[in-house]
Amino acid sequence: MCRWLAYSGSPVSMETLLFMPKHSLVVQSLHSELGAEPTNGDGFGVGWYTDDPQPGLFKSSEPAWNDRNLRELSRHIDSGRVFAHIRASTGSPVQQTNCHPFRHDRWLWMHNGYIGDFAKVHRDLLLQVAPERFPEIEGSTDSEMFFQLALTAGLEDDPPLAVARAVGLIEEVGRAHGVTFPIQMTVATTDGKRTWAFRYSSEGRSRSLFHSTDISTLREHYPDNVLLNMVSDDARIIVSEPLSTLRGAWREVPDGSSVLVEAGTQELTPFAPVPWSVATSVPSSAAPVPAMAAVPRDQSGQAIGT
Amino acid sequence: MCRWLAYSGSPVSMETLLFMPKHSLVVQSLHSELGAEPTNGDGFGVGWYTDDPQPGLFKSSEPAWNDRNLRELSRHIDSGRVFAHIRASTGSPVQQTNCHPFRHDRWLWMHNGYIGDFAKVHRDLLLQVAPERFPEIEGSTDSEMFFQLALTAGLEDDPPLAVARAVGLIEEVGRAHGVTFPIQMTVATTDGKRTWAFRYSSEGRSRSLFHSTDISTLREHYPDNVLLNMVSDDARIIVSEPLSTLRGAWREVPDGSSVLVEAGTQELTPFAPVPWSVATSVPSSAAPVPAMAAVPRDQSGQAIGT
Amino acid sequence: MCRWLAYSGSPVSMETLLFMPKHSLVVQSLHSELGAEPTNGDGFGVGWYTDDPQPGLFKSSEPAWNDRNLRELSRHIDSGRVFAHIRASTGSPVQQTNCHPFRHDRWLWMHNGYIGDFAKVHRDLLLQVAPERFPEIEGSTDSEMFFQLALTAGLEDDPPLAVARAVGLIEEVGRAHGVTFPIQMTVATTDGKRTWAFRYSSEGRSRSLFHSTDISTLREHYPDNVLLNMVSDDARIIVSEPLSTLRGAWREVPDGSSVLVEAGTQELTPFAPVPWSVATSVPSSAAPVPAMAAVPRDQSGQAIGT
Amino acid sequence: MCRWLAYSGSPVSMETLLFMPKHSLVVQSLHSELGAEPTNGDGFGVGWYTDDPQPGLFKSSEPAWNDRNLRELSRHIDSGRVFAHIRASTGSPVQQTNCHPFRHDRWLWMHNGYIGDFAKVHRDLLLQVAPERFPEIEGSTDSEMFFQLALTAGLEDDPPLAVARAVGLIEEVGRAHGVTFPIQMTVATTDGKRTWAFRYSSEGRSRSLFHSTDISTLREHYPDNVLLNMVSDDARIIVSEPLSTLRGAWREVPDGSSVLVEAGTQELTPFAPVPWSVATSVPSSAAPVPAMAAVPRDQSGQAIGT
Repeated sequence: MCRWLAYSGSPVSMETLLFMPKHSLVVQSLHSELGAEPTNGDGFGVGWYTDDPQPGLFKSSEPAWNDRNLRELSRHIDSGRVFAHIRASTGSPVQQTNCHPFRHDRWLWMHNGYIGDFAKVHRDLLLQVAPERFPEIEGSTDSEMFFQLALTAGLEDDPPLAVARAVGLIEEVGRAHGVTFPIQMTVATTDGKRTWAFRYSSEGRSRSLFHSTDISTLREHYPDNVLLNMVSDDARIIVSEPLSTLRGAWREVPDGSSVLVEAGTQELTPFAPVPWSVATSVPSSAAPVPAMAAVPRDQSGQAIGT
Repeated sequence: MCRWLAYSGSPVSMETLLFMPKHSLVVQSLHSELGAEPTNGDGFGVGWYTDDPQPGLFKSSEPAWNDRNLRELSRHIDSGRVFAHIRASTGSPVQQTNCHPFRHDRWLWMHNGYIGDFAKVHRDLLLQVAPERFPEIEGSTDSEMFFQLALTAGLEDDPPLAVARAVGLIEEVGRAHGVTFPIQMTVATTDGKRTWAFRYSSEGRSRSLFHSTDISTLREHYPDNVLLNMVSDDARIIVSEPLSTLRGAWREVPDGSSVLVEAGTQELTPFAPVPWSVATSVPSSAAPVPAMAAVPRDQSGQAIGT
Repeated sequence: MCRWLAYSGSPVSMETLLFMPKHSLVVQSLHSELGAEPTNGDGFGVGWYTDDPQPGLFKSSEPAWNDRNLRELSRHIDSGRVFAHIRASTGSPVQQTNCHPFRHDRWLWMHNGYIGDFAKVHRDLLLQVAPERFPEIEGSTDSEMFFQLALTAGLEDDPPLAVARAVGLIEEVGRAHGVTFPIQMTVATTDGKRTWAFRYSSEGRSRSLFHSTDISTLREHYPDNVLLNMVSDDARIIVSEPLSTLRGAWREVPDGSSVLVEAGTQELTPFAPVPWSVATSVPSSAAPVPAMAAVPRDQSGQAIGT
Repeated sequence: MCRWLAYSGSPVSMETLLFMPKHSLVVQSLHSELGAEPTNGDGFGVGWYTDDPQPGLFKSSEPAWNDRNLRELSRHIDSGRVFAHIRASTGSPVQQTNCHPFRHDRWLWMHNGYIGDFAKVHRDLLLQVAPERFPEIEGSTDSEMFFQLALTAGLEDDPPLAVARAVGLIEEVGRAHGVTFPIQMTVATTDGKRTWAFRYSSEGRSRSLFHSTDISTLREHYPDNVLLNMVSDDARIIVSEPLSTLRGAWREVPDGSSVLVEAGTQELTPFAPVPWSVATSVPSSAAPVPAMAAVPRDQSGQAIGT
């Protein structure tokens, strides 16, 4: 089982975000939890946005939290959008090319979970990746394949639909190979401006997903918290693990939902797979089409923290 | 450009074979050459046979010749059949899963060269790998793909034909993508009893390939050479680089040839690609069929060293 | 906290010893325990004896139990004397030179525990290492320093006395620097023929230490156990962690004791520090002298398993 | 032989500085030279200054110029003061703790060369490091030891004198052990505001050292050079290797000299060892004392580029 966090808001030191256990909303619990979790030593990765058109990536196949380079970089890099992931391999080799987040142009992607019986379905899924995308695949994980499927399905144009289609394909191919539960996932993706996170599993018992609530309210309750005082009101964090430190700080994303964080707002939406074929005849840059009605995104979620 | 050596003969310490520059036929020059070659620091691998049904493998993504573990292991392992390879990446990531030799059951495979414009032809070649072999692919190199194609083409039954078919496919697919010179190769493969090596390139200017000559003759000329005195008369070495130390020790394998080393004999045979489709309707365990006549192996080479 | 095991007996495959959880006396529990222990991912090392005058070493700074090279080597190496150690750094860098076991000529050494406030006492202890031994120090751990102190104190001539003197020095120097509990240790050392293990701590609450009992008796009780049937009657294992699988298989080494395993026998002896200066005027190769009476080894322990 | 570069000037992307061979004053030749130099694959390090009181460090034991993380970081980090070093081990282990630059508070240090017969003199030199500095030593190189000696000798107060004293000690201890040429060095050190570089060897045949000349003049001659147009007039680069690309761009630092770069000026000064004992009775913060007259720094060098 992997773990991840996605931050967006005013630029903060990555050190504060990732390492300061006494002062940080996030790592305060995440870090101690990490200490208690034996199986997250199979590498890690961090992605962050600067003025460069492409986000930066730092990945290592070694255990994360003792890594000196990560500490150094975190101390010297501020960013307003950070993805961080620690990996627990479910079988594929421990190597940098298998570390999350994965990147395509301005997009980052990270995943906690698995594609069921990946060895069985790997080839069939790979054949669905757009041939021109093929050379971009560097590693051997189910998570990178999932990303490439979502890109093929139009992630850059309509992330929720693209993820829903990729999940639809994974379930379809899995079932064709007799896999009972073809997917288990929490996924985060961003273009550097908006962050989407998804919680879903074929089994209906998905891994956990939480997002932070309104910072200004929290700040009133916890006036001494350093991170709360460092970040702006529009800061939001999405994490794969429940953080218990600050009561009222975290809300669970319901199973079968996605959350969109943008400019200090978050919006919950139901999430369910759609058939891979749904949008194939639709130009990816086209306006929304009837087929999209199949995506249950239009039952819009309630605003949170208001 | 990578380099490799393939040893077969009486069991010798891998240390003698790989490291003893003053006493070794092989490394005496290989090692010094290695020192002069800047680009072979992208990992290495060694495969060796013991009583175990499967050969052992030791691989590292770090530069080879300073690696302490390799030194230790070499000192404590004797083997009568050793494959050693040092890698110079031509673009794919420096990671253990990309290090040679590659293994399947009792078989080892190593390659010096490249598949031209691999990013272009990768997907099409991958589709020709037998689907049941697909999960065995762990890395992202052209060399591992080439091995899987050869296995698909029947390497375990008829190595020269299988390699000729794989090369035929690589050239066919390459040309279909406008690649002028689809392949450049010296390849070694073994089942633990026999070793085949191939020298070929689309361009007709292939990388070098040498094999050692009769040991007993050499021993007479160089009575003080330690390795010569340690190995039996049937010992043979095939290497990708010319070794100049002992005059008369090495014979070049002509371009467009293969050499088979078995029980102290070596046999040279012309090598040329054959169409991938050649044997598809023929059970791989069947007797030789007319299609095989297309393989120029039946113009058998002269014995060497006799 | 580190963990280690020391095997002596008939040659067995290191794979059986280290990896076969269902068939192995040792790893059956050790391995599952390892899985539950979050902090043993800071590298590992294995030392083994062959015909070579010096034992072999394989070390890595990466987590041990997923390491492919370790698996490969274990499968292809048989040995009658094996030291294995997994490291949990208490602060010093995660690097190969800090991995146990440490080696000097035919001797191996591994340690679970720490020298209290090592940064404070490091320099003073280093000054006591024999100057001619100084260049042998490659890493920065307290454990390697401890080994060098024991060697300086005559480990090769009288291991129990040398360890007792080294501990005496560590306690003396520690107390001079105001360290309350200067040492915590279980240590194993071997010359390839005999293995000594020590359990001691300044605090009197030492880390655990166990040794296996008579194999033939166990074999009667567990006729289906593969490892029991593979090893000879004189096989003995000493481990830092209690293994609960086979009732009656393990005996605890009492705190403040050492155990010597030799040729299928084990002998328990009380262990206590002696002053560093005790033997300084005595040539290390001299016959036992009165000063040695200070070592409580002559209150010989009871035979176990008989 | 190692190589290094020290940049100071207006903030530039580290990518421009380290990687852009076609647009960069520095790497244009350095990079291609690196390609031709087989022995600089034993790790690397980069240090850079930001608003943080301490410079950042990124080090790896793997070969530098293919390192993906280094590429990523370089692209996303701008800095006005950068130290970069690629290592060729002369025997000490290839590990992060042995990579340059070394750091103490705001200071960085990197070295090309060696302390002669280091194994012989290591212990005696170590004893001269101030005991309170001892715990700061993490690796096992002569270069780190040299840094600690310079710090002990007052690097933070008077860098040229401290380096001269450290060299004096190294020569004194070396000669006492019969070492003919105790030191070979080009060294760079900085406090983040000023950079000093030293060229010296006992033999009088020191490794090369070059500094860039006035940027504005160069810019006139090479109006199309990207780096020249990106950096301010006060930018200066010191490098261990002659760079031949832009005629007139580089001036050699004479053997037995040091160069100080500060705020767009450079000043050459003769450099020679002084006895270690020279300043021991002088508080390091004291005003210049007669002993300092022994340092040939007051024969001030000529301004260059004017």
